[in-house]
Amino acid sequence: MNFDQMFQTQLDALKEEGNYRVFAELERACGDFPRVKSHSNGSPDEVTVWCSNDYLGMGNNPTVMKAMMDTVAACGTGAGGTRNISGNAHHHKLLEAELADLHGKDAALLFTSGYVSNWASLSTLGSRLPNAVILSDSLNHASMIEGIRHAKCAKVIWKHNDPDDLDRKLAALPANATPIVAFESVYSMDGDIAPIAEILDVCEKHGAMSYIDEVHAVGMYGPRGGGVAEREGLMDRITLIEGTLGKAYGCVGGYITGSHALIDFIRSFASGFIFTTALPPAVAAAATASVKHLKESQWERAMQKRQVARLRARLDAEGIPHEHNASHIIPVMVKDPVKCKMLSDILMDQFGIYVQPINYPTVPKGTERLRFTPGPLHSDEDIEYLVMALKTLWKQCAIAHAVA
Amino acid sequence: MNFDQMFQTQLDALKEEGNYRVFAELERACGDFPRVKSHSNGSPDEVTVWCSNDYLGMGNNPTVMKAMMDTVAACGTGAGGTRNISGNAHHHKLLEAELADLHGKDAALLFTSGYVSNWASLSTLGSRLPNAVILSDSLNHASMIEGIRHAKCAKVIWKHNDPDDLDRKLAALPANATPIVAFESVYSMDGDIAPIAEILDVCEKHGAMSYIDEVHAVGMYGPRGGGVAEREGLMDRITLIEGTLGKAYGCVGGYITGSHALIDFIRSFASGFIFTTALPPAVAAAATASVKHLKESQWERAMQKRQVARLRARLDAEGIPHEHNASHIIPVMVKDPVKCKMLSDILMDQFGIYVQPINYPTVPKGTERLRFTPGPLHSDEDIEYLVMALKTLWKQCAIAHAVA
Ligand SMILES: Cc1ncc(COP(=O)(O)O)c(C=O)c1O
Ligand SMILES: Cc1ncc(COP(=O)(O)O)c(C=O)c1O
Repeated sequence: MNFDQMFQTQLDALKEEGNYRVFAELERACGDFPRVKSHSNGSPDEVTVWCSNDYLGMGNNPTVMKAMMDTVAACGTGAGGTRNISGNAHHHKLLEAELADLHGKDAALLFTSGYVSNWASLSTLGSRLPNAVILSDSLNHASMIEGIRHAKCAKVIWKHNDPDDLDRKLAALPANATPIVAFESVYSMDGDIAPIAEILDVCEKHGAMSYIDEVHAVGMYGPRGGGVAEREGLMDRITLIEGTLGKAYGCVGGYITGSHALIDFIRSFASGFIFTTALPPAVAAAATASVKHLKESQWERAMQKRQVARLRARLDAEGIPHEHNASHIIPVMVKDPVKCKMLSDILMDQFGIYVQPINYPTVPKGTERLRFTPGPLHSDEDIEYLVMALKTLWKQCAIAHAVA
Repeated sequence: MNFDQMFQTQLDALKEEGNYRVFAELERACGDFPRVKSHSNGSPDEVTVWCSNDYLGMGNNPTVMKAMMDTVAACGTGAGGTRNISGNAHHHKLLEAELADLHGKDAALLFTSGYVSNWASLSTLGSRLPNAVILSDSLNHASMIEGIRHAKCAKVIWKHNDPDDLDRKLAALPANATPIVAFESVYSMDGDIAPIAEILDVCEKHGAMSYIDEVHAVGMYGPRGGGVAEREGLMDRITLIEGTLGKAYGCVGGYITGSHALIDFIRSFASGFIFTTALPPAVAAAATASVKHLKESQWERAMQKRQVARLRARLDAEGIPHEHNASHIIPVMVKDPVKCKMLSDILMDQFGIYVQPINYPTVPKGTERLRFTPGPLHSDEDIEYLVMALKTLWKQCAIAHAVA
């Protein structure tokens, strides 16, 4: 059997439609971020990153780096086992306590990633709760979708960010159903924010569990970085809050927080938590330092807000179309995978501006886009240079008309 | 709806049957391993770890630690994005090249863990290859089982380590099936090793893809640490070799290796690879150093073999029953979750010996065990002390008779 031929056929189809992915190869150097060394063919040696999910530059924060290095020096590089079998470090417990406090919950549980935290938690809830029905926002992230698929329980999709539709769908469930409502706060590709209070009203009306993914909000929203739900004073009304340590916190790993019983339940039954090597203690220590820092410091959040507003205003002033939303994410729609990649390539090769084309399967086909995430370390000059580059391109390219 | 009550009911059932897990809380200190600080109630402040999966102590290797610290200092704590969107570091590429070379393959692909590498690869192969049938060894690891479940393709379980049964089951498939044979080299809970050559003979006879998990073998078997398949000169006959960076290599992360087309296929289609933050460059650098080190150095492997043989001989001499196998894993069967936990607690509290009770769901109910993994850093005195402690317990406890 010619397996390579089978693989190649599907890869060729991807290339044909313009959705084959080429990864930009980067090397960060502390102190220089968002400037990074590029190892990609054709690009300048140094480029400015405009699409990082290290939204606040915490990956280069000296306190966070020091925590990681000190813990490597003290404890070594790995955990050496699963949490149950010799891999449970004091550092994991400290981080979990920090996260429970961040969200005002009894307890927290660490996973190797945000992806695994969603997948493992939703699949465990859906498969183990009697008559579980998961009600999923139609634009939920892949990690939630896969977790729900894996649960093999009943599933209902409700209209994106539409509490009325959710209300109707909850009302239509059989009386013995155990409803779990899963949604995000900030949707990372469009940058829109869920009407959390209204969704919780509906959940409470129907006695449903609420499950929120605050992956693109933790660290950035709320006075202590607890996310949009913290900002809106809603954390105590949510059953389960999920987050990542890999984006605004600048490290890697994921987590959930909730009641003692909930956390103990997932800890005891989730395959994706049980059967895997724990995160290195050094990563846990770095994440703890990062969470702690962003509970106190307002500078990163304030500067990010300022630079996001500034880029939006400059794009508006120059007539470069972009989606308006209430978050830190600035999508510029291109709606064609080939044109999107072409724009990205020109920005990289001719201007040293790195913004990855966002294509299928990350977004639906036909909604390809460039997605800008200004951070506190982008200077006003960086913004000006980006806007000038986009302006030049928008003038030159035929695409300008297609996009406008 | 009282969700906490639902959780608690299932937790109470676990406690009832003796399978509720309490994690030992440890703190490693470099230079002292396998001695660690214990934060667990009732235990001495310092205990000796006898159940680590940092099999060779590489988590405390100075070169590996230095690589991690230097890379944190140079690049920061996190990757800052998925591999596709700004998270692809030069260090990931270097590690993938190192791993491809380790297994004599065209290419390699990194994942956040060995669990995710199995889950994502098998679910992608099974769901995307036309008429895929995954033939799975009956004792495969949870990460493979969940990947196969997730694929929703046809599945056939074959008798553990039995090439004849596999042969019969492959022969019974419809002519248009695309067969994928998934198995491990070292089974971590019993320590037995698969008859890889015979399994490959059967795969080749039927034109099946071979998928091997060498998670408990990489670093430890073969002249360069390529695993059991390297030791037996079989790597080039295997389609896909999967491994972890979290056990013998002392870090965290997982990977697969194979042909260019295979790796590009998984890279392009696997949700669990695409939609998640990449491993920190510093982790990749540490893992690269560890893989490189164990390609050259024989000391760790030789000392591990010596200490494994020594512990086995001493257990035999003292009449303490244990399972015989051809690997580095020494299981002592207790066959009862409550007694197993009791033995483990006494060893920890009275002797400062940490060996986690292995219970359901890690092993089937009724096969609970203690599982010892001697390493190069256990001294002869450590072994003697362990054997004396076990001897004391075996004499004292009624359990001795149940176990013999
Ligand atoms: C909404 C959402 N949830 C979860 C994840 C996964 O988090 P992590 O990158 O920590 O795996 C992502 C992105 O990666 C995401 O966008
Ligand atoms: C056979 C096997 N495969 C895969 C894994 C998962 O590897 P990791 O710990 O890197 O997630 C494990 C154990 O954790 C295992 O025992």
